[in-house]
Amino acid sequence: MSLIFSQLGARQQESDIARLMTMALERPDLLSLAAGFTDNDSLPLKEVSEIAVQLGKSGDKTVLQYGPNHGRSDLRTKLTQRLSEQDDLPPKSGYDLRKAFISNGSQQALYLAVQTLCDAGDVVLVEQPTYFVFLEMLRGLGINAVSLPMQENGEVDAAKLDRMLEVYETAGTLDRVKAVYLVSYYANPSGHSVSTQAKSEVLEILGKRGGRIALFEDAAYRELYYAEPHEARSALRLGLDADLDVPIFYTTTLTKPFASGLKVGYGYCTHSEWLGHMLAIKGQQDFGTAHYAQAIFNKVFESGLFDRHLDRIRSFYYEKMDTLDGALRGGLSDLPWSWERPSGGLYLWVTAPESVETGFDSRFYAHCLKQGVMYVPGDLCHADRKVKNRIRLSFGVLAGEALKEAAARFCRAARAVSA
Amino acid sequence: MSLIFSQLGARQQESDIARLMTMALERPDLLSLAAGFTDNDSLPLKEVSEIAVQLGKSGDKTVLQYGPNHGRSDLRTKLTQRLSEQDDLPPKSGYDLRKAFISNGSQQALYLAVQTLCDAGDVVLVEQPTYFVFLEMLRGLGINAVSLPMQENGEVDAAKLDRMLEVYETAGTLDRVKAVYLVSYYANPSGHSVSTQAKSEVLEILGKRGGRIALFEDAAYRELYYAEPHEARSALRLGLDADLDVPIFYTTTLTKPFASGLKVGYGYCTHSEWLGHMLAIKGQQDFGTAHYAQAIFNKVFESGLFDRHLDRIRSFYYEKMDTLDGALRGGLSDLPWSWERPSGGLYLWVTAPESVETGFDSRFYAHCLKQGVMYVPGDLCHADRKVKNRIRLSFGVLAGEALKEAAARFCRAARAVSA
Repeated sequence: MSLIFSQLGARQQESDIARLMTMALERPDLLSLAAGFTDNDSLPLKEVSEIAVQLGKSGDKTVLQYGPNHGRSDLRTKLTQRLSEQDDLPPKSGYDLRKAFISNGSQQALYLAVQTLCDAGDVVLVEQPTYFVFLEMLRGLGINAVSLPMQENGEVDAAKLDRMLEVYETAGTLDRVKAVYLVSYYANPSGHSVSTQAKSEVLEILGKRGGRIALFEDAAYRELYYAEPHEARSALRLGLDADLDVPIFYTTTLTKPFASGLKVGYGYCTHSEWLGHMLAIKGQQDFGTAHYAQAIFNKVFESGLFDRHLDRIRSFYYEKMDTLDGALRGGLSDLPWSWERPSGGLYLWVTAPESVETGFDSRFYAHCLKQGVMYVPGDLCHADRKVKNRIRLSFGVLAGEALKEAAARFCRAARAVSA
Repeated sequence: MSLIFSQLGARQQESDIARLMTMALERPDLLSLAAGFTDNDSLPLKEVSEIAVQLGKSGDKTVLQYGPNHGRSDLRTKLTQRLSEQDDLPPKSGYDLRKAFISNGSQQALYLAVQTLCDAGDVVLVEQPTYFVFLEMLRGLGINAVSLPMQENGEVDAAKLDRMLEVYETAGTLDRVKAVYLVSYYANPSGHSVSTQAKSEVLEILGKRGGRIALFEDAAYRELYYAEPHEARSALRLGLDADLDVPIFYTTTLTKPFASGLKVGYGYCTHSEWLGHMLAIKGQQDFGTAHYAQAIFNKVFESGLFDRHLDRIRSFYYEKMDTLDGALRGGLSDLPWSWERPSGGLYLWVTAPESVETGFDSRFYAHCLKQGVMYVPGDLCHADRKVKNRIRLSFGVLAGEALKEAAARFCRAARAVSA
């Protein structure tokens, strides 16, 4: 090994995603309840090709040129209007276009928000459970993820959060706490949506600290509801109404509910100095998100295709959730395993009996691999990794009989460790 | 301003690109010899639409799904074979596919190479002049760019580099010097290509330090030669032949010579532990480059379109270079301004008389703005900003009469400061 890499050690880390992917590659016989991907059959290939034809016919070659670093203005306008509507803001006093940008998926938007605000050694407070790729990102940047105090109902415990911040304040380390991260709609992995009350309480607690701690709201699954949009408005709107001094970063993805292969996300930031810095870093990272993909999305919205597509897949994912839920209920009805039916998203968050550990190296995981099924161990989704008996199951990829078969394998593994 | 942003100050920076873009937006009457963009008319919109139609007809919906984080295997295979051919490696002992990855343009590949290898306060050695966006990236990451000693002919002075490294060694700070960055073919901004001899000498000097300093080779313009490919093989090949312990990172872009709006780059890295770390960070930044754009490029190569397109634009850019060169020669023949005709790329690197400063705040820049033409000040392309009389002119965007008019305006400004 070259000498220079002897220093890389401290930076390197075991990647949980890489481990899952390697597992999937080495065992093509495994059915995956792990991958948080959407269903291939649901992908709008024909429609995207038609849009490409329209772009071709338009003769506007600039779609193959660099676009502005912060994103196409027509697309940013549409998305900002859409967000204003979702948050019931009147058209004339909607969100400010100048605070919006387009990213390489919401993943990059989150990365930029963290990278610009946090130094190594800083703290970001996260829900229990939280999005495990975000935890990996924090580790990669040398930032400490610390668990938020939670209530039984899956909401942040605001009173305890207040006392927690007081402890940091007393210790003189509050300035290392840079942000609270909430996955606010049909969350990955819990399926939980943060209520208006809980979100307001968190904002209020942060507001008391006078602009010292930011809120990151990850709304990736907001549009992937099954029947009705969730009633809670975004933290942007709640912060606006309460006139609080809390810097808020909001992000969502266009591609997860439509087509991951296009990789376009949207970010909105209440403070222009923060956004300016994110865009400077974005310019250094990629000089703007692929213009062609943005031009496609502009037409996807313009033509109403986005909404038509979502209408179609909402019932589709509801049915898949229902299939997996039903198959698990059938297979585990006599055992003390539990989960809730979500109202949107791609995940069931399963609680195994306390005595059953579910980590990569657990007996249960070994049983699942033997049966031929994969899942995401719940400990990955906790900052402290101390919760050992949780499981994230995704019904994104599999459908129909394959989904039922995966559930059957999972149930057999559950019975094996319960025997 | 929220309190949290009071700490952002130290991270924030004036962006040169942002300044150029703002200027262009505020003054639409300006003709731009500044932007390093390709010509809109040259962009293969019809061809890309046809490929999108083929992708649609194939029925393979996975092109709209997530792809592997490190890139599509068929595209990586084609690009690695292409690189092997360019470097005259026999097909059976070509470069190692496992060391190649796909990025969001070569910009992201460079960012990852730097981010994984360097800490804030480290040093990267750069040519004089060098790619100014790379200098911005280093500043953004808190890394010090230090100028390499150069010869009159535009090559790195290897003997002086050796003594320079000796000084770092004696001072006990050599371990802060992480890499040498070379823009090796038809460089932005100089148009210079690094000769085999110069590249070999740099590698040898680095090799003497036993794997402590890496080489970044930025080959963005390698395929944008006008008549014949440059004779020099990549540092990868030279390092292989000399069996040196120098970690090498090589990157190139597919989109600059074809269509910037698709934003796909290629990276190759001699050391798998380094690559592994880059890919971990890439996974955190975006979870893989847009799969659809990669699928398009796979077909662009498969169908021979990439080479056909390059054949077409090579003569096109030669003619534009010739037009700008001719117009400047016509307008400045009696004045001591000089430049060389490059054999590829998009830039003329002009030397004004010593007495003429060319920075943003110079009298000459003011004259150019008055005449209605923009350029990139040469000081931006130097790590120490001490070279004050250089100018980067790009003939990428403008063509024909507009290019001649821009040159005429530039010449009038030159005459005004020479009077």
